[in-house]
Amino acid sequence: MGFDPQDAVFRAHEGGKLRLASTLPLVDRESLSLAYTPGVAEVCSVIAEDEARARDYTWRSRLVAVVSDGTAVLGLGNIGPAAALPVMEGKAALFSEFAGLNAVPVVLSTTDADEIVETVERIAPSFGGINLEDISAPRCFEIEARLRDRLDIPVFHDDQHGTAIVTLAALRNAATVTGRTLADLRVVVSGAGAAGVACTKILLAAGIGDIAVADSKGIVHGGRADLTPVKAELAATTNRAGLTGSLADALVDADVFLGLSAGLVEEDAVKRMAPGSIVFALANPRPEVDPEVAHRYAAVVATGRSDYPNQINNVLAFPGVFAGAFDAGATAITEGMKLAAATALGDVVAEALTPQYIVPTPFDARVAPAVAAAVARQAVVDGVALAAPS
Amino acid sequence: MGFDPQDAVFRAHEGGKLRLASTLPLVDRESLSLAYTPGVAEVCSVIAEDEARARDYTWRSRLVAVVSDGTAVLGLGNIGPAAALPVMEGKAALFSEFAGLNAVPVVLSTTDADEIVETVERIAPSFGGINLEDISAPRCFEIEARLRDRLDIPVFHDDQHGTAIVTLAALRNAATVTGRTLADLRVVVSGAGAAGVACTKILLAAGIGDIAVADSKGIVHGGRADLTPVKAELAATTNRAGLTGSLADALVDADVFLGLSAGLVEEDAVKRMAPGSIVFALANPRPEVDPEVAHRYAAVVATGRSDYPNQINNVLAFPGVFAGAFDAGATAITEGMKLAAATALGDVVAEALTPQYIVPTPFDARVAPAVAAAVARQAVVDGVALAAPS
Repeated sequence: MGFDPQDAVFRAHEGGKLRLASTLPLVDRESLSLAYTPGVAEVCSVIAEDEARARDYTWRSRLVAVVSDGTAVLGLGNIGPAAALPVMEGKAALFSEFAGLNAVPVVLSTTDADEIVETVERIAPSFGGINLEDISAPRCFEIEARLRDRLDIPVFHDDQHGTAIVTLAALRNAATVTGRTLADLRVVVSGAGAAGVACTKILLAAGIGDIAVADSKGIVHGGRADLTPVKAELAATTNRAGLTGSLADALVDADVFLGLSAGLVEEDAVKRMAPGSIVFALANPRPEVDPEVAHRYAAVVATGRSDYPNQINNVLAFPGVFAGAFDAGATAITEGMKLAAATALGDVVAEALTPQYIVPTPFDARVAPAVAAAVARQAVVDGVALAAPS
Repeated sequence: MGFDPQDAVFRAHEGGKLRLASTLPLVDRESLSLAYTPGVAEVCSVIAEDEARARDYTWRSRLVAVVSDGTAVLGLGNIGPAAALPVMEGKAALFSEFAGLNAVPVVLSTTDADEIVETVERIAPSFGGINLEDISAPRCFEIEARLRDRLDIPVFHDDQHGTAIVTLAALRNAATVTGRTLADLRVVVSGAGAAGVACTKILLAAGIGDIAVADSKGIVHGGRADLTPVKAELAATTNRAGLTGSLADALVDADVFLGLSAGLVEEDAVKRMAPGSIVFALANPRPEVDPEVAHRYAAVVATGRSDYPNQINNVLAFPGVFAGAFDAGATAITEGMKLAAATALGDVVAEALTPQYIVPTPFDARVAPAVAAAVARQAVVDGVALAAPS
């Protein structure tokens, strides 16, 4: 595509997409001495005595750092921190517009996992939570795990868990609308990157026992010699039928296809799935199965695109997840909180389910408050809440 | 002081003092696809091709990181990053209110100079400029110097250079109003910390030849065995009269007292200064010389306080300095740009000088645009501008 500065996309991005403002007017001596010196010294002093007061008197308790090293940006790949910044600004804008949170893009000039962990740890006192974004697999798994371990604020890799939460919510509703339960489903996941791994884990946690995962080399199984540690763990926890072979082999009689890679699937493979199948073809912009083709065989079809029904969009999860975690003063985002988010999200449309309506649309104003409330409640149950949710 | 949450200062600080918002409404599919996916991918792509375009299409070109390790906060000292955050939020609010810039507080969990430099370097792609704040001497000198060396964006330690710029502007006007020129002045600087060192350097650069600096041990001179490398440099560049002894000794017949420490000065010492002397007693909240006492002997008195005339307040400098640097796309803030800022600042009140009015008040709306214009012009002269100032 060419670069036309007059194009609407570029016009919309002029000067960036975020604006910071003072919540207090600083227009005279009185307001300045309240918000800045000498008044601010009193606030500093009481926080120095008891750091917990920073929750009440600084913006960090509702502030997310959107952290990326620019290595896995959209479908563009490793484009570096400067080029990743417009995505991170967009993400920050979504936090603001959908949940009233503050969020700041932090793009890094390093792609070394140790350095990323170290850097985020050093700047962490500035923030209330860390949203990792567009960091390539498998480094993203290690970076998230180490930061969760070291920090006492929520750490959430959205490409993993945002996708997983929305997928689980939609899949539960898809099962309901096709007369099944989650436990009944035979699921095939295509893709073992950030989203594939996280979706597989949350589906297992939600009670789906029969899952096979395929990467570009075929079905993940313990007999393969080329598995990364993360894939070896998948091999141990999935594929109880002991399948080998290709993605198409796995799809024979499967109830669910969950596409989280860009690998296209032949019509024949879709045709061989179980009757009344469920196809989630989430690759963007080109779904793994053309939605028109999928509809010939499947009872429910979802994509990542806004121009088809049933859009699986992370914005249904991350604003409410962080808002709920902040409401509860949560020190972490637990697996339970993710499952609670998925349940709350799916429940928003439970009374109105149709095969074309298994998830709310991104602009459904009920979503973020419902997810936030469920996440905050679960934080208390899971013992990671510092505050009673309001 | 006690902690009363109902106090106006604490009420004003509830929830912090900054708010981030999207510049674009994200209310429907069209707006979302413009600001976020799929539209944003085009913007990412053109920046990936040419990083210079990030200046036009991200917010970083007018975004300051307000970086602190919390080691030298106001008069409170080393209170740590969380307790320092209200000051950094206030600073960010001032950037917004006084110059329309965006600024984000970044407080660090490390006080190690190497780690601070490394961390700021790694997050630098997120920002257009770095304002270092409340980092204790002598680490602040090294940290600033190394970051200036490594980064191609403006780096500015405000406790040094903000104070220096405003002090020079005020002192030039104080000289004028008392019938002197800068070159005539015999200056005694009390304090060899961040502000003392930077003020001394800018006064030397502005043509004041006769400066003596005193720290808590007395006059800085080459014969002292206890000098840090920074103070040894001061000993080499100042005190051409070869003075030894105490601050009071240095003040005999001095034209100017510049107080940048909390060390109090006896009335007798002020009395022994030259007739029509100039007293800048900038310690906060308690000036080194009581302003009432200073007025018995001095022709011009300035303080750091808002409740006396002639307030030396950094807010007269840093918003305009960064605005000018950003307008010019400056890759650094040169010594020439600091001198230009001081000249422009002093010139704002040149037509209306009185002993009670040697600097503009903090709320003078002429200041930031005047400083910004001068700084941007000088950036071009000094060859550090990427863009023609508008």
